[in-house]
Amino acid sequence: MTSGHRREHDLLGDREIPADAYWGVHTLRAAENFPITGASIAGYPHLIDALAAVKEAAARANADLGLLAPETADAIAAACREIRAGRLHDQFIVDVIQGGAGTSTNMNANEVIANRALELLGHAKGDYARLHPNEHVNLSQSTNDVYPTAVKVATVNAVRELLAAMTVLREAFADKAAEFRDVLKMGRTQLQDAVPMTLGQEFSAYAVMLEEDQSRLAEAVTLIHEINLGATAIGTGLNAPQGYAEAARGHLARITGLPLVTAANLVEATQDCGAFVHLSGVLKRIAVKLSKSCNDLRLLSSGPRAGLAEINLPPVQAGSSIMPGKVNPVIPEVVNQVAFEVIGNDVTITMAAEAGQLQLNAFEPIILHALSESITHLGAACRTLAERCVRGITANTEALRASVQNSIGLVTALNPHIGYTAATAIAKEALATGRGVAELVLEQGLLPEERLAALLRPEEIAGAGGAPA
Amino acid sequence: MTSGHRREHDLLGDREIPADAYWGVHTLRAAENFPITGASIAGYPHLIDALAAVKEAAARANADLGLLAPETADAIAAACREIRAGRLHDQFIVDVIQGGAGTSTNMNANEVIANRALELLGHAKGDYARLHPNEHVNLSQSTNDVYPTAVKVATVNAVRELLAAMTVLREAFADKAAEFRDVLKMGRTQLQDAVPMTLGQEFSAYAVMLEEDQSRLAEAVTLIHEINLGATAIGTGLNAPQGYAEAARGHLARITGLPLVTAANLVEATQDCGAFVHLSGVLKRIAVKLSKSCNDLRLLSSGPRAGLAEINLPPVQAGSSIMPGKVNPVIPEVVNQVAFEVIGNDVTITMAAEAGQLQLNAFEPIILHALSESITHLGAACRTLAERCVRGITANTEALRASVQNSIGLVTALNPHIGYTAATAIAKEALATGRGVAELVLEQGLLPEERLAALLRPEEIAGAGGAPA
Amino acid sequence: MTSGHRREHDLLGDREIPADAYWGVHTLRAAENFPITGASIAGYPHLIDALAAVKEAAARANADLGLLAPETADAIAAACREIRAGRLHDQFIVDVIQGGAGTSTNMNANEVIANRALELLGHAKGDYARLHPNEHVNLSQSTNDVYPTAVKVATVNAVRELLAAMTVLREAFADKAAEFRDVLKMGRTQLQDAVPMTLGQEFSAYAVMLEEDQSRLAEAVTLIHEINLGATAIGTGLNAPQGYAEAARGHLARITGLPLVTAANLVEATQDCGAFVHLSGVLKRIAVKLSKSCNDLRLLSSGPRAGLAEINLPPVQAGSSIMPGKVNPVIPEVVNQVAFEVIGNDVTITMAAEAGQLQLNAFEPIILHALSESITHLGAACRTLAERCVRGITANTEALRASVQNSIGLVTALNPHIGYTAATAIAKEALATGRGVAELVLEQGLLPEERLAALLRPEEIAGAGGAPA
Amino acid sequence: MTSGHRREHDLLGDREIPADAYWGVHTLRAAENFPITGASIAGYPHLIDALAAVKEAAARANADLGLLAPETADAIAAACREIRAGRLHDQFIVDVIQGGAGTSTNMNANEVIANRALELLGHAKGDYARLHPNEHVNLSQSTNDVYPTAVKVATVNAVRELLAAMTVLREAFADKAAEFRDVLKMGRTQLQDAVPMTLGQEFSAYAVMLEEDQSRLAEAVTLIHEINLGATAIGTGLNAPQGYAEAARGHLARITGLPLVTAANLVEATQDCGAFVHLSGVLKRIAVKLSKSCNDLRLLSSGPRAGLAEINLPPVQAGSSIMPGKVNPVIPEVVNQVAFEVIGNDVTITMAAEAGQLQLNAFEPIILHALSESITHLGAACRTLAERCVRGITANTEALRASVQNSIGLVTALNPHIGYTAATAIAKEALATGRGVAELVLEQGLLPEERLAALLRPEEIAGAGGAPA
Repeated sequence: MTSGHRREHDLLGDREIPADAYWGVHTLRAAENFPITGASIAGYPHLIDALAAVKEAAARANADLGLLAPETADAIAAACREIRAGRLHDQFIVDVIQGGAGTSTNMNANEVIANRALELLGHAKGDYARLHPNEHVNLSQSTNDVYPTAVKVATVNAVRELLAAMTVLREAFADKAAEFRDVLKMGRTQLQDAVPMTLGQEFSAYAVMLEEDQSRLAEAVTLIHEINLGATAIGTGLNAPQGYAEAARGHLARITGLPLVTAANLVEATQDCGAFVHLSGVLKRIAVKLSKSCNDLRLLSSGPRAGLAEINLPPVQAGSSIMPGKVNPVIPEVVNQVAFEVIGNDVTITMAAEAGQLQLNAFEPIILHALSESITHLGAACRTLAERCVRGITANTEALRASVQNSIGLVTALNPHIGYTAATAIAKEALATGRGVAELVLEQGLLPEERLAALLRPEEIAGAGGAPA
Repeated sequence: MTSGHRREHDLLGDREIPADAYWGVHTLRAAENFPITGASIAGYPHLIDALAAVKEAAARANADLGLLAPETADAIAAACREIRAGRLHDQFIVDVIQGGAGTSTNMNANEVIANRALELLGHAKGDYARLHPNEHVNLSQSTNDVYPTAVKVATVNAVRELLAAMTVLREAFADKAAEFRDVLKMGRTQLQDAVPMTLGQEFSAYAVMLEEDQSRLAEAVTLIHEINLGATAIGTGLNAPQGYAEAARGHLARITGLPLVTAANLVEATQDCGAFVHLSGVLKRIAVKLSKSCNDLRLLSSGPRAGLAEINLPPVQAGSSIMPGKVNPVIPEVVNQVAFEVIGNDVTITMAAEAGQLQLNAFEPIILHALSESITHLGAACRTLAERCVRGITANTEALRASVQNSIGLVTALNPHIGYTAATAIAKEALATGRGVAELVLEQGLLPEERLAALLRPEEIAGAGGAPA
Repeated sequence: MTSGHRREHDLLGDREIPADAYWGVHTLRAAENFPITGASIAGYPHLIDALAAVKEAAARANADLGLLAPETADAIAAACREIRAGRLHDQFIVDVIQGGAGTSTNMNANEVIANRALELLGHAKGDYARLHPNEHVNLSQSTNDVYPTAVKVATVNAVRELLAAMTVLREAFADKAAEFRDVLKMGRTQLQDAVPMTLGQEFSAYAVMLEEDQSRLAEAVTLIHEINLGATAIGTGLNAPQGYAEAARGHLARITGLPLVTAANLVEATQDCGAFVHLSGVLKRIAVKLSKSCNDLRLLSSGPRAGLAEINLPPVQAGSSIMPGKVNPVIPEVVNQVAFEVIGNDVTITMAAEAGQLQLNAFEPIILHALSESITHLGAACRTLAERCVRGITANTEALRASVQNSIGLVTALNPHIGYTAATAIAKEALATGRGVAELVLEQGLLPEERLAALLRPEEIAGAGGAPA
Repeated sequence: MTSGHRREHDLLGDREIPADAYWGVHTLRAAENFPITGASIAGYPHLIDALAAVKEAAARANADLGLLAPETADAIAAACREIRAGRLHDQFIVDVIQGGAGTSTNMNANEVIANRALELLGHAKGDYARLHPNEHVNLSQSTNDVYPTAVKVATVNAVRELLAAMTVLREAFADKAAEFRDVLKMGRTQLQDAVPMTLGQEFSAYAVMLEEDQSRLAEAVTLIHEINLGATAIGTGLNAPQGYAEAARGHLARITGLPLVTAANLVEATQDCGAFVHLSGVLKRIAVKLSKSCNDLRLLSSGPRAGLAEINLPPVQAGSSIMPGKVNPVIPEVVNQVAFEVIGNDVTITMAAEAGQLQLNAFEPIILHALSESITHLGAACRTLAERCVRGITANTEALRASVQNSIGLVTALNPHIGYTAATAIAKEALATGRGVAELVLEQGLLPEERLAALLRPEEIAGAGGAPA
């Protein structure tokens, strides 16, 4: 054996492991087998923490049932808590895209925990006769229940962060809705001038959209609380003793603080990726609407002169080296790109879920990767959009009001007050002369100035659409 | 004017309309403008019925508020009821893929209803001075609230049919799960032999998956009950009188029997396609799992000799002209294809929703088309799969049992009963000799025959995975 | 037997067939087995024609090789020519989405051709002892070579029509590019004012994009000319005699006028859907760019007052019942929707291709359906866009020129002529005062009027970007 | 100023930059503005190298035209060469997903190159009066021509690596095809036993598929050689002097060794992402077929006892902790997952391309990211599949031959030799008794043993499908 190494054995033979590595031979094989992305699972801290939580819960349940000596369980639990405190994450070295339904991730966790527990018990790393990655850390478990359970716990925690980021953005939009409550503007349908509204209503819609999306996301994540711990290989619970599933679930719920439940049908639960597809569908919904909102922000701030120029986004960086003074809507643009990524990820997740066969879906690692990316990037996008864009938006109030007075669409609003015949005549004259409807109505004495002003009050214009919440 | 025609006028000028046509000039323009698919909206009966329901509700609300003479409202309502009874559908001639956010569909409905109402009142078609498509049938409305509302009512009704079809399939799977309750087989993970289970558990999983999908679909369709009737052009309710939105919603709920609610923020509701994206995401989830189940059925019935040959699908047609006696899994195959279509439609709907701008999404017609296709084809696929395949499936019980007894995986199940050392030795010998584990266990006297038989009882094997529901 | 019926037999037993039906028992089973879309393959005339061409080619090859009596081959060929002349299409009744890799479509063709050939020979329909759907019409063939070959021939012909439609649109854009050659306008990047250009350049870009897409499409369709006729079941050519493949290919090339080639490796060719995925990818590329162009047209024509209002799309129908005079960009909108459909279809085709297993892809029917839809709808969209929109576009030339003179971006163009220091000062003053750069340059005597005018000549502004082709 | 820092200025004000940083204030702003993925462009070495090549080419062209002093150009070129030698990559700190059409990436390059060039000239970093990121490094350029050009050069180089990896895999498949040339097996269509073939033909098909994909990829990457350097902001070449475009292209072709050409229409080329969509479509095609091949490998190696068990994949790691001896097809599984990712990326790229507006597509950064990921992961997948799986595959030759002799499908092959009547009788008896066709044929004396053996020779069975290449 090379100095500075220890020797480990698996069904393929012996391998030398660096003496200071907490991972072992199974992790080494996997690291060699999957040189795909160069990004290891260490970059998914929610997953590492969740794996540690599951392993601690399993150890506790095994101890409860007399399968594990208390001191062994304690050592395993102590190692798991260290991981959840942020230590040893660099020992999780297998590639995030990996074959084997997560087995390599599970084995990486088993080995790191076993070796750290051995150290805590005063033994050398690799002294598996005393505490074994499989026989003790993985006792009563299978990758096929551990991995999906950990992915779910990780996902729940990631989604909570996304929900918080969405709140930040929603409030930024709502604040602007209040600020712009009295700003009149032309509403548009199919990019054509339609009828007046307030800019507050426009921003309020963005806030309301996000609020609805948050509700849907909260509902979808509820489904992710259903776990299959205790299912072992295919859901029949083979090799997990009576009472283990419930004990492990209880410990995991306590450790994570999450209201986890065990699936009613473990065979179904072990092969079914429906909840992930569902969640991804909701993330896609969020992405679609965020993207639409950002498209609007970019459109409304187009200009400064040859555009709509209704609002101004805060400048956050120079836009061009060649065109002095040009400032671009870079923050909405980055959010659009995250949205496109999330929509692509949804297709990836869909295909991975569809490819499951018989009692297992072997493709959960890519589901984890894509889901995790979608959730964290959406969260970053929401915060960035709120903090670096929405909060600094200003309105070109006067130009907006003028556009209403100058519009043909104003006729529609005045129709009930000046009569259909007069309205039609005004519209025709406005179209022919290029003059404004308000101007013509006043000139022809169809309405007194104060009456017209009253009809153009924001609260009148906002109508049934409601003032900003 | 050509004989057999009447003349109608719009902003582009005069056009001759066939005298017996219920549709008018706006419909004619649209039919000419959108020669895309050759498939008219007449092929979407749920939509036609829903449009008629909305128009009747609007007429009633307008009459309640004194905006429409009772006899006019009655005539409109009578025309709408005829349409909902299946008449005049052939008058809906505009292409299903059309520009204009549904305006052409709405105008087609306005014209057909106006002309039929005129007839019912004893007037000639085209006598719009008496009853006008826009001024009476479309009173207090805009395409932008009528069309999404009709699409939602149509979608709710279509989804109800899909839920019923899913029940048929779920029950077929559940019946088979019960029938195969005692059939032992090898469970597989990653297509490799894993541990024993029952065929009943396998089919039970399909039934449970469908049940969960039904729950998710029922939740998603709830969101579709929120309508924006009364929003008119952009959600401010311009030109709709006070009280109209609630009156129209009430009538529509009564006419359709659906618990419809009006959106809290009509500006947001008028531009937001989130509920459609969400519903499509759930349909995609259903498609993914149906496809996975069908992949399994095809795999399990592969053979007859060089395949798994675990189950037999009922033959429904000859499989090959060139290979006599070949029977193919054509029913699962057609379901797979519907699933692929639904997954593609989800991308179409996603893009259409993302493309909405400012106060409106102009692309709802393609959303309607794709959603409608997904829902009705999934329904047809579920019924066909149940009736022409699942109900006739039989199991090759003896071969399945033999595969368990012959498997290495059986060792895992016997491990607690013969001890780890003996189990390992048996596994090695089985691998080396190609002989069966059960055979070796008996030969070596590790277990008496009746004990082994007891351990292989289906209820023992099913374990924590539960017997079929 | 019921009167008006004949009896036919297959491996499932006897069935009565309407006496006047050209289809037979296999078609009947399939029609019953696949009640999915309600749309039969009769709606795919290119496919029906291609099937008839393949069957005629096969009959001729079989006759050449002495396997089919000349009069039998003649009768089959005569029936096929009738079909290609447009007759009997209504006899192709199986659903377009069907299980079985196209077997039902192939059998539908075999039966219709056999029965029509029997009639031509003076025999009764159903008298298969004389001329049999399988033994004669399908001789030396398998669905697995006939169907893909027919789909390819059909696709080539459909793509030719699409290429022609793209030419119509390309020429419409090019004509506008020439017409707008001298119209100055502001170019925009990221929706922000950038530097001047001509409207002719803008439209020229749309024409050039289409030209490139046509080149790519022409290349992709070349791949579709590679067929696997003679492969029979799995590519080994079992049951097809020596020389058949080449003879059949030769006849088919002659009949269709297409330069078809036989794949070098028939086993590979029989299972590979790569060429369809490739073609769909190119169709998606076309859709993406068409959609982008239509987005631009809608944006540039936004207004009439509160939008960019650079160009005017010809009105083709009234846009709103509620907003008098509103005209919407309905033609670009319908093209956008077709693009979204094509992009969704690409995902469907991708999944269907990925799902192929071992020696065959059983999911070609949905590939045919989705490809056919994409091709024909894109063609309709191109023609409609050209004829109902692009040709009638007008420019608001004066306003566009004013926007250039009023822009800050003009400074970038004047920079080399007035010096960087002066340019920066002018830009600052323009920003501060809201005045135009041209106006300030003249006022401050930085350039004489004629020099400024010269610098703003279209050919100067167009620069390296080139004048319209 | 804080010690250890220098001060830099942009339109938003002053910022302190770490003294040892080669990047400057624009990079700092961008790093703060886009906290999205945490992955910087340093992780895209092909892009960094390509940017350096473009900057060197531009400096040379500017020097040729007398716009840049020779020593300045030399210093810039020297800095660029260092970067291309692998130095300073850690200075490229902006997030890969960023708003602004690549401006931040371009500015990051400008600043790093300027500061390194300053050092090489003996000046301090930040002494931009002597050598300025914009005025010298970016001279005659815009992000809108530099960034797409760099992305294209980077993509061409990445694709070359992918093509090499595909060759490795193709040769591995071809080697196995030769090795398995004489291994008889049953071919399958729709997972049902069809007719005999050789295992060599099966593997040959995988090799041929890859060869075709390589041809398509090579064609697609040709399109990527068309660049728009010299287009500057929108394609009109504003601020780039006469002759610059051609000079810069020439230098870039020389530096990179690539046969680059300048687009004929620079306005079109600057806004068009068609070539990226096209390339992604081809990558998707490759992914689809790789995934299909891996699905087959997993299916053919299913077992060991309750599966098809036709081939054995080399074990590369233990498959299960709970099921001793279980080995899973983890390498094909990881390739499937890469394929799903590539297919999702294609949707992302499609949406990003479609979202371009007017003279620019602002979303190229996500296109770069997704393309780069698809290309490099596919390359890793191909190599891994070749080296860790295909090369070690073995065949279960005897069982495969037995499955042919035992099949009903053998009848189809013997049909011409024993006559249709006898064949049908044999098939019926085989089905009824479960006995093998070969056995029955011999028993009934329908063929002498040596004749049957001759008919079952691999070259006979391979038929028109051809022996392995």
